[in-house]
Amino acid sequence: MATVTLIDYENGSAEVQAVFDDIKTARNVPDVNNFWKALANYPALLKRTWESSHEVMAPGALDAVTKEMIYIAVSIVNNCEYCIHSHTASGFAKGMSTEQYQELLAVVMMASQTNAAATAMQVPVDQKFLATGQKAG
Amino acid sequence: MATVTLIDYENGSAEVQAVFDDIKTARNVPDVNNFWKALANYPALLKRTWESSHEVMAPGALDAVTKEMIYIAVSIVNNCEYCIHSHTASGFAKGMSTEQYQELLAVVMMASQTNAAATAMQVPVDQKFLATGQKAG
Amino acid sequence: MATVTLIDYENGSAEVQAVFDDIKTARNVPDVNNFWKALANYPALLKRTWESSHEVMAPGALDAVTKEMIYIAVSIVNNCEYCIHSHTASGFAKGMSTEQYQELLAVVMMASQTNAAATAMQVPVDQKFLATGQKAG
Amino acid sequence: MATVTLIDYENGSAEVQAVFDDIKTARNVPDVNNFWKALANYPALLKRTWESSHEVMAPGALDAVTKEMIYIAVSIVNNCEYCIHSHTASGFAKGMSTEQYQELLAVVMMASQTNAAATAMQVPVDQKFLATGQKAG
Amino acid sequence: MATVTLIDYENGSAEVQAVFDDIKTARNVPDVNNFWKALANYPALLKRTWESSHEVMAPGALDAVTKEMIYIAVSIVNNCEYCIHSHTASGFAKGMSTEQYQELLAVVMMASQTNAAATAMQVPVDQKFLATGQKAG
Amino acid sequence: MATVTLIDYENGSAEVQAVFDDIKTARNVPDVNNFWKALANYPALLKRTWESSHEVMAPGALDAVTKEMIYIAVSIVNNCEYCIHSHTASGFAKGMSTEQYQELLAVVMMASQTNAAATAMQVPVDQKFLATGQKAG
Repeated sequence: MATVTLIDYENGSAEVQAVFDDIKTARNVPDVNNFWKALANYPALLKRTWESSHEVMAPGALDAVTKEMIYIAVSIVNNCEYCIHSHTASGFAKGMSTEQYQELLAVVMMASQTNAAATAMQVPVDQKFLATGQKAG
Repeated sequence: MATVTLIDYENGSAEVQAVFDDIKTARNVPDVNNFWKALANYPALLKRTWESSHEVMAPGALDAVTKEMIYIAVSIVNNCEYCIHSHTASGFAKGMSTEQYQELLAVVMMASQTNAAATAMQVPVDQKFLATGQKAG
Repeated sequence: MATVTLIDYENGSAEVQAVFDDIKTARNVPDVNNFWKALANYPALLKRTWESSHEVMAPGALDAVTKEMIYIAVSIVNNCEYCIHSHTASGFAKGMSTEQYQELLAVVMMASQTNAAATAMQVPVDQKFLATGQKAG
Repeated sequence: MATVTLIDYENGSAEVQAVFDDIKTARNVPDVNNFWKALANYPALLKRTWESSHEVMAPGALDAVTKEMIYIAVSIVNNCEYCIHSHTASGFAKGMSTEQYQELLAVVMMASQTNAAATAMQVPVDQKFLATGQKAG
Repeated sequence: MATVTLIDYENGSAEVQAVFDDIKTARNVPDVNNFWKALANYPALLKRTWESSHEVMAPGALDAVTKEMIYIAVSIVNNCEYCIHSHTASGFAKGMSTEQYQELLAVVMMASQTNAAATAMQVPVDQKFLATGQKAG
Repeated sequence: MATVTLIDYENGSAEVQAVFDDIKTARNVPDVNNFWKALANYPALLKRTWESSHEVMAPGALDAVTKEMIYIAVSIVNNCEYCIHSHTASGFAKGMSTEQYQELLAVVMMASQTNAAATAMQVPVDQKFLATGQKAG
């Protein structure tokens, strides 16, 4: 049970219904997920979150599956049960293959253990990483 | 300062030097990073970590840059200063573009905020995400 | 299911019952929450935790609702399901308004995303923040 | 050293300068903090982050100091060094008293330890917290 | 529900069955836990994870119960529900006493609150901790 | 630089000096660490934290080194730079061997990666772990 009541389309204000319509159209789905129904208690927050999310997750320099995989990685480390489920499903729906998911898992596991080791030993950052050489442009 | 002494090549045991040689060859670099010099205090741990890391980060169903971006995402959420620096540098060295890095940042920021919202409201996972439909095969 | 058996009042030792009586009186409730029933397996831990908690959460320079909101914020980032539920309920019971909860959510979401960005880019702390100017007295 | 070059006003594009001008006016400061100079590498991200941040942190149902305290709490748990420094300074600048900061610290410490205990013992959420009684409206 | 299908012994490939046989023999159990059935979707990951886990958790300079307690501590802070349950059970099965578990809890709670305090105040590391005096050899 | 001024013995109130005297006697050291000098801004918090810490870390069902190792494990996952340094030093000072530290590192790394995997796949807790069989008494 959520800490807030989930708002269904028919119980939403005009502002909420407009955002829900947007989501349904953009994703071509008959109904929005529980996340949006929870946020719908706070229409301004709902609108801002949906709009930035839609913009950020659109394919650009990174394709949609890569963005979902990064999202999943963050959600795993943040341990967000809802987000892990919804974005893993979303990744597969957008074409993530079993092999890609396996490698995503393997990288997340690897990074988790080396993160722990580097932090545990407080390894000093190599001088070269602090120079401009690591920067993109 | 690390909690352990960094072991340079010339101070390493034969076992350590063998791993260092492997790393230098695989990456075509004149010296290994501080992370490996710290782990070198524990040769068995050094060897196992290098071998799995090398295997996991090799291009496969995911290319090398995508793997680095997932690694960076995990390191950001785990807040590993060393790993953020070394893998951001590594990502750029392997060809990550400025635009890709910007989108990586944007996705990590987006996921962080929606993770917080879903967790805060304890949004129940939609039934459809719990069914087999989300699985790869 | 907890990893320990929940101890009900009638199964508690005299020491446990004394703490439970204290909690029931302080909060004017007929029974204590599951958290205390779980801690009751370890009477010394129960007593110390209740006493400091009661002291720390009492209104002082910060009112009770503000303290609950800070508690909720910490619990969200730590992802403590139990604590999110119990302290969100407690916040509302102590008078947190819907508007306040919405703004709490918005700040937690905002901080989560800027935390991620500052950490990702390893932004150096501005010199002025390191001087005494930021200190209270 | 950041993973990106900090962009000063004079090196910023017109779009960046416009956001910097906005920040300087809104905060009545002669220059923007390093966080914005780092984000300035990505003008669209800079603009969106500043605009939502400015909106979210404005006093509303919660006053400015309370919002800063919630921000600090999140930043502590996320361990964002930059954010802890800048928002602690900002809290004091906006009028947070030494006593309020002390109580903030005490609540964050208390929540951290009870979060750990509830998670460790996997305490089941009390039935009453799952009912609608805990909800605002 | 997992994001992947759990693989039972009879549905596993020869490679999976070989690892399952190893686990059952090493632990003297009739069946493997769900964790391994989930990883069995990715046989190479299953094999590597089991082999390192088996090696790392074997008694050495630290006895088996101490290793389980460290594992539990990490799992609590990472908030891994599965791991908290399985390793708490495993700790008790290997001989962890109620008193030891209570003290484990107390230390995890204590560390959680002092971690929060040190991070909140950004306490500078004492010079003596940065010298070689703290190192083992 | 800390967000608060470090309070030296000679600048402390009588209440602060009493706690500092206690710490110096208990630990047989000429001066207290920076952590206590930072907390000394808040005498009540200083006193309560020192007293519970001293009680919790005293050898009991777990010896002093085991307690330090659990403390270090928590501090690594919480990424508390100060705490990692001070408790790693403290562990070595109390007799933790190089071999024990290496195994501590290996267990923390192992747990970090399996935590990530179990969370990523949302592996359901085995029924047997939810039964009372896992409990101590």
